Amino acid sequence: METNSSGGAGGGLGSESSTMILHNAVVVTMDSDCRVFQNGAVFIDIDKIKAIGQSRDILQRFSHVAHHILDLHGQILLPGFVNTHVHTSQQLGRGIADDVDLMTWLHHRIWPYESNMTEEDSYISTLLCGVELIHSGVTCFAEAGGQHVTGMARAVELLGLRACLTESIMDSGDGLPPSWGIRTTDECLQHVAEIPYENQVVMETRKVDHGTVTFLDKIDFLQENLLAAHTVWVNDTEIGFLSRSGVKVSHCPASAMRMLGFARIREMLNAGITVSLGTDGAPSNNRMSIVDEMYLASLINKGREVYAKGTTDPTALPAETLLKMVTINGAKSVLWDNEIGSLEIGKKADMVVINPFSWSMVPIHDCISNLVYCMRTENVVSVMCNGRWIMRDKKILNVDEEEVISLAKEASSKLLRRAGIKLPSRMNVIP
Amino acid sequence: METNSSGGAGGGLGSESSTMILHNAVVVTMDSDCRVFQNGAVFIDIDKIKAIGQSRDILQRFSHVAHHILDLHGQILLPGFVNTHVHTSQQLGRGIADDVDLMTWLHHRIWPYESNMTEEDSYISTLLCGVELIHSGVTCFAEAGGQHVTGMARAVELLGLRACLTESIMDSGDGLPPSWGIRTTDECLQHVAEIPYENQVVMETRKVDHGTVTFLDKIDFLQENLLAAHTVWVNDTEIGFLSRSGVKVSHCPASAMRMLGFARIREMLNAGITVSLGTDGAPSNNRMSIVDEMYLASLINKGREVYAKGTTDPTALPAETLLKMVTINGAKSVLWDNEIGSLEIGKKADMVVINPFSWSMVPIHDCISNLVYCMRTENVVSVMCNGRWIMRDKKILNVDEEEVISLAKEASSKLLRRAGIKLPSRMNVIP
Repeated sequence: METNSSGGAGGGLGSESSTMILHNAVVVTMDSDCRVFQNGAVFIDIDKIKAIGQSRDILQRFSHVAHHILDLHGQILLPGFVNTHVHTSQQLGRGIADDVDLMTWLHHRIWPYESNMTEEDSYISTLLCGVELIHSGVTCFAEAGGQHVTGMARAVELLGLRACLTESIMDSGDGLPPSWGIRTTDECLQHVAEIPYENQVVMETRKVDHGTVTFLDKIDFLQENLLAAHTVWVNDTEIGFLSRSGVKVSHCPASAMRMLGFARIREMLNAGITVSLGTDGAPSNNRMSIVDEMYLASLINKGREVYAKGTTDPTALPAETLLKMVTINGAKSVLWDNEIGSLEIGKKADMVVINPFSWSMVPIHDCISNLVYCMRTENVVSVMCNGRWIMRDKKILNVDEEEVISLAKEASSKLLRRAGIKLPSRMNVIP
Repeated sequence: METNSSGGAGGGLGSESSTMILHNAVVVTMDSDCRVFQNGAVFIDIDKIKAIGQSRDILQRFSHVAHHILDLHGQILLPGFVNTHVHTSQQLGRGIADDVDLMTWLHHRIWPYESNMTEEDSYISTLLCGVELIHSGVTCFAEAGGQHVTGMARAVELLGLRACLTESIMDSGDGLPPSWGIRTTDECLQHVAEIPYENQVVMETRKVDHGTVTFLDKIDFLQENLLAAHTVWVNDTEIGFLSRSGVKVSHCPASAMRMLGFARIREMLNAGITVSLGTDGAPSNNRMSIVDEMYLASLINKGREVYAKGTTDPTALPAETLLKMVTINGAKSVLWDNEIGSLEIGKKADMVVINPFSWSMVPIHDCISNLVYCMRTENVVSVMCNGRWIMRDKKILNVDEEEVISLAKEASSKLLRRAGIKLPSRMNVIP
């Protein structure tokens, strides 16, 4: 048996772990009883949580069989965060489409970028994106669609993350790159009710009352296994459709603010819809941080009430709801809530260690609200996925961060040149 | 002469500097020509900028007289940020009033907290707040009003920051702590048009058409030296009053979202009003980061257009405007734009070094937009105020950060006990 302090770079924390106790942590389980162990511990057997409870209890019962015992010194242990909407292959395009209208964004930036990507670009892009996801405490994500899924898969496997990968499919839209038009889909399947114009087109062409959601209900497409992203432009009836059919909604506050509008999140949660959070892709939201999305989702949804009630509602989307959205609701959204999303016996050991003792989070009068309103990526210190550490003390373990950054710089410059994307200068640059 | 690399902890960078060259940096001057030197340098004499330009030029002209020469290795050099609305004495109350309505916020949390503060509490609170401000690249701030200005002043002097300090004055409001009622003011002087109710009260009691701004115009209070915070509930006529009289506006997006509403920032900027950014106090906005406020201000103001135009406007408040708001507009707001707010010959050496080469900011296709949309406090590495480094390589130089955190924990617990503030538990906590 080996005992490690959280500060040490000690052994037993790398790739092969067998049984392990993490103790002396504030364990925020996110289970259905919302249990928080003030001085808690978790016993892990290979990839699964075998026991959870108070430190003294877990130590007493499992110390003799634990290969590694790690003291977390009062830091916070949470389930790994789930990012339910991210375009990993867009990471190399961060910053290529800021402050431009939607048409410029699509026609002159994103489509040329995506249609000129190679499989290797997608691999490097996903590596860079994965590094950022892990630094934000993400252990699982749902790819929202992009280019060269094999490239994404290689990167995800190397990083040690859990993910649902998808390719993007598009068969309509003026100026679509020719190679994409060959493949057809009957309707966009994931980005639902993003913009008002979409509803208008659907009403005209599909003969329905309101828009995309109404049409998808009509064709019996709304099912429990549908993860709908954005859903900004939905009415009460459509919220009813989504709720009744068990559709999951991914709310992406930052990209919604830039491109789409205010999603009716409070109403959807009240209607019992499983709402989770996503970052969207880097050219829509340059910070790929689910930690920042929690903060944003809270602020935007409190503020939005001003348009309904005449004043903001500081009680809307409280901290505990936001934590649910990035953990158990995220797990439900990818249909893996039997495996992940909370710290419970039998679930996978996907977890994140938060250091709350820095200037950004002290004083800690309300630990749960500090996690939502104060926490930044800086406070995320260690991340475990499937029982293996993928970040320790802010060091990514499975890839060389500096090398990924250097590959990304080179690949992205070449890609932009190939795609003919030139950005205007915002200031008077003297070379 | 001594030559240092930015990576080193080398000498000549501490308290006493005389003449110094910083070179090999992307120098974003924020001067009236918006000059950016791709490979730029600054020559500093004691507390002032004596020369600015291309590296080879500055090195050639001043190397022989420079006591210190520092290679910034391509990092970004900007004017220090100005936070124009911060309640430093509220920092110990971070997290005491999350997800509660305005009345609970005031009566049961903030007033008991503030009225039970000691001068030492204010000192410690300001130290903690100052540490966070410096980590966010702030070199100058405008205190929005709080308790025990002498405590604030001691802390600010020790930290090496530049600040305008103020005490808060209040003479009306149900449930006001008795000690405060003795002092009178004719009207709140800084928090202007925060909430709709305020306008209503002003209309009824002061016999004016609209609200606070209209009343302040009537009594000739609107002047160039007024820094109005929030100004959420103003109409077109009032924007005209503010513009004509040269009043400065401090926009605090995070706290506005929680408590107040959407300020009409695009309209104010279009009307020529000097708008800057503020964080407000920690119980209104737990993250005291002007870096995050830039990101937020951009998103919220792009999103707000949906209510005017039917769609968001991704081109509203572009990155270059946001950078102006936190630099030169901040300086104008505190009437120190002859001294600070841009990197120009004769101005004070208040500056911040940004490391853009980390996973959070690469790739850098558009340096200016990356500063606004990708940058996080993690990227702020060094901060200089009045020609002296107050943070180097993320280490605060003038106070011991750990000691401040430890003092803050103790003082804040005692203060909450004294004030009788008890927070309900959000989850099922097992001790």
